[in-house]
Amino acid sequence: MTAIDLLIEARWIIPIEPAGMVLENHAAAIDNGKIVAVLQQQEARLRFLPRQTKHLSHHVLIPGLVNLHTHAAMTLLRGIADDLPLMEWLQKHTWPTEQKFVSPQFVYDGTLLACAEMLQSGITCFNDMYFFPEAAAKAALDSGMRAAIGLITLDFPTAYGTDADDYLAKGLAIRDVFREEPLISFCLAPHAPYTVNDRNFSRVLAIAEQCNLPIHLHIHETQQEIDESMMKYGVRPIERLRRLGLLGPGLIGVHAVHLTPDEICLLAEHGCSIAHCPSSNLKLASGLPALISNAAKQGINIGLGTDSAASNNRLDILQEMRLAALLAKACSGQASTFSAHEVLRMATLGGAQALGLDWLIGSISPGKSADLCAIELDSISQLPCYDPASHVVYSAGRENVSDVWVSGKCRINSRKPVENTEIKLKKLASLWQNQIRPRQA
Amino acid sequence: MTAIDLLIEARWIIPIEPAGMVLENHAAAIDNGKIVAVLQQQEARLRFLPRQTKHLSHHVLIPGLVNLHTHAAMTLLRGIADDLPLMEWLQKHTWPTEQKFVSPQFVYDGTLLACAEMLQSGITCFNDMYFFPEAAAKAALDSGMRAAIGLITLDFPTAYGTDADDYLAKGLAIRDVFREEPLISFCLAPHAPYTVNDRNFSRVLAIAEQCNLPIHLHIHETQQEIDESMMKYGVRPIERLRRLGLLGPGLIGVHAVHLTPDEICLLAEHGCSIAHCPSSNLKLASGLPALISNAAKQGINIGLGTDSAASNNRLDILQEMRLAALLAKACSGQASTFSAHEVLRMATLGGAQALGLDWLIGSISPGKSADLCAIELDSISQLPCYDPASHVVYSAGRENVSDVWVSGKCRINSRKPVENTEIKLKKLASLWQNQIRPRQA
Repeated sequence: MTAIDLLIEARWIIPIEPAGMVLENHAAAIDNGKIVAVLQQQEARLRFLPRQTKHLSHHVLIPGLVNLHTHAAMTLLRGIADDLPLMEWLQKHTWPTEQKFVSPQFVYDGTLLACAEMLQSGITCFNDMYFFPEAAAKAALDSGMRAAIGLITLDFPTAYGTDADDYLAKGLAIRDVFREEPLISFCLAPHAPYTVNDRNFSRVLAIAEQCNLPIHLHIHETQQEIDESMMKYGVRPIERLRRLGLLGPGLIGVHAVHLTPDEICLLAEHGCSIAHCPSSNLKLASGLPALISNAAKQGINIGLGTDSAASNNRLDILQEMRLAALLAKACSGQASTFSAHEVLRMATLGGAQALGLDWLIGSISPGKSADLCAIELDSISQLPCYDPASHVVYSAGRENVSDVWVSGKCRINSRKPVENTEIKLKKLASLWQNQIRPRQA
Repeated sequence: MTAIDLLIEARWIIPIEPAGMVLENHAAAIDNGKIVAVLQQQEARLRFLPRQTKHLSHHVLIPGLVNLHTHAAMTLLRGIADDLPLMEWLQKHTWPTEQKFVSPQFVYDGTLLACAEMLQSGITCFNDMYFFPEAAAKAALDSGMRAAIGLITLDFPTAYGTDADDYLAKGLAIRDVFREEPLISFCLAPHAPYTVNDRNFSRVLAIAEQCNLPIHLHIHETQQEIDESMMKYGVRPIERLRRLGLLGPGLIGVHAVHLTPDEICLLAEHGCSIAHCPSSNLKLASGLPALISNAAKQGINIGLGTDSAASNNRLDILQEMRLAALLAKACSGQASTFSAHEVLRMATLGGAQALGLDWLIGSISPGKSADLCAIELDSISQLPCYDPASHVVYSAGRENVSDVWVSGKCRINSRKPVENTEIKLKKLASLWQNQIRPRQA
């Protein structure tokens, strides 16, 4: 018998690979942070001598959820200005507040709060884009979460940097600091086609190729973005990116609400990924992502993102799975579009693949990191249960997430965070709330 | 000082009337099941001598949520056949299963389970339509919930009745049995335009007028329903109802996904209500309720419904509020459409008004029944909190519902059901699950 750190015995395991599979009464054997084997419970008890056994007798075990698009620190601005037209939201509320308050401490504290919320929601990895990414990386590490840290680039100055060269230099320096951290990876993060010029996109591309990093950017979020690109560049942003050479397997296009069939072909041909953020797209009235199911059909890899707590206002990938599935059914006119298993893949392996991390996370497969999420399915609101995959997507919510592991380390245990930081986090949130003048008390 | 049963001191109260108001550090004084006063906490302590005081120091108190469209008993079929085209879902799964299993016991047990889920989700009143409504009424009463029981009518026979005359006779007899129950009210429930002929609609109308009952029916749910009506009657269903005289302030049109501007005018002129069920509309791919915000603008009263757990699969009006708000923003292209306060009104007073119960429930107003829901807003996922109305709709979920009262009686106390029926309900769900052959184990 082989000694291992942990054996998780679950009523159901949805490994994501192979697709559509639900394993009953199986176990995941974990050692040294990795998944060693996925096998029947009876067999597992014969083969392994675990130092700890976790019984999940009414639960489904899925890979840790991947949040493919966040501005985690903006959690400090949760709900500060809702129900407003996009430009008023940005120009009168979000940007002025950011200008006044964003600092390394703001980013650290806000990201810490976001990590706590995400872990409790079953999210084990997030792909972040914000100022002072060093502070976000620190917060992720201090929370025991996996993060892809966006090295943000803009044409104009902010509290964090003066120009694109400065942003990129700072970003590369941050990468040097954290490059040995197994939980931290990086993306180049040129903010959006309307905030980054051609020269700076070319610099980003050169660094991405040199360092083998994904590129994470907002794209085709609103019609206005596209109209402005037509005015300024004579082409839509995706075509502009194509001409600049940015389309490729490393590209994570966030939102992609407004797509033509030709653009879908283009993204598919180049192996790009889409970070689909349905709550944010609807809440900011960016548009209906009507063709997202066509994009999936053509083979574009899709992950799910929450966007920030200022535009969503939940960092909750279970919510995004449900909404992605429901919305795609209505937009396509087919109730079979975006099945439970399909959106489960997006929320896990899809996100991992976009980040170039599918060798490490995104499925419950031997050799991969033990980033795991258990969802309890025997509360009154989950019964009866004929199909655990359906329940995860349509019936359950983050309130049903019971246990979460990142790299084999337990972060949420029977609904409670392992590190008792709740009081500290509540104080932080309260301090910031009192500083950031609210429109409503 | 006046002796009262209960004083609820809440950090915030959103009374719904007046519209858009958020009261801080106020209290609701409750006596004999009724709201006696809503006033500042300091004043309340001087005026009232409560037998019990409930402190909700991080909570928002709202009226109990009204679920304006359910088939509660179908909770026993939760998630039994998802991701299937509508006709396959109905004809191969839902209808055959119902035909085999629906009985008074099925309805009683399923409704009991639904009531437990709804109470935990802050819902205090539901508008039901299903077979054996007597069993549903009993389950609601045994759960301490308020219910509008639909007296269902169809042209064809089922286990419950032989023809429309039989359904109506049974319905009226049930009304006689429960008419003295203060928590039970009734609607006539002719199922839908495609299952009820003109003669039977006329009978329903006659009884509705005679007994002063609302009429609860599915309407314009799918394009197919409209196409078939054009073939059979030469007009769309709403026009057919108009000709039959059914349009009026008592009409609750469920779904109303497919509306023309003229139909919106017609419904508005006649004072009809719409039971908007966004999750169900999307999940069954019935269509995008694109003009629902136009309907609201023209003054049509709108309530929110979950539909059944077989098509949703959560009996969760907080979820429907969020989705209704998000979807209307995207469909209208305006982030200001369906503000948090607007959807809060739909989920409470809107539903109450549709049922003709707005004199009794739907707002926290002196004289009304103490049907109340408290939502806790100081968990990590709710901080910071600048705007409690925004938090209820966009950030919170049913997991944040802490306390629920129906007619002044506490049903959920600090997240726990007052009646400890959980073990019994889980057994019931398990028994039915084992009987109803699942497609997946």
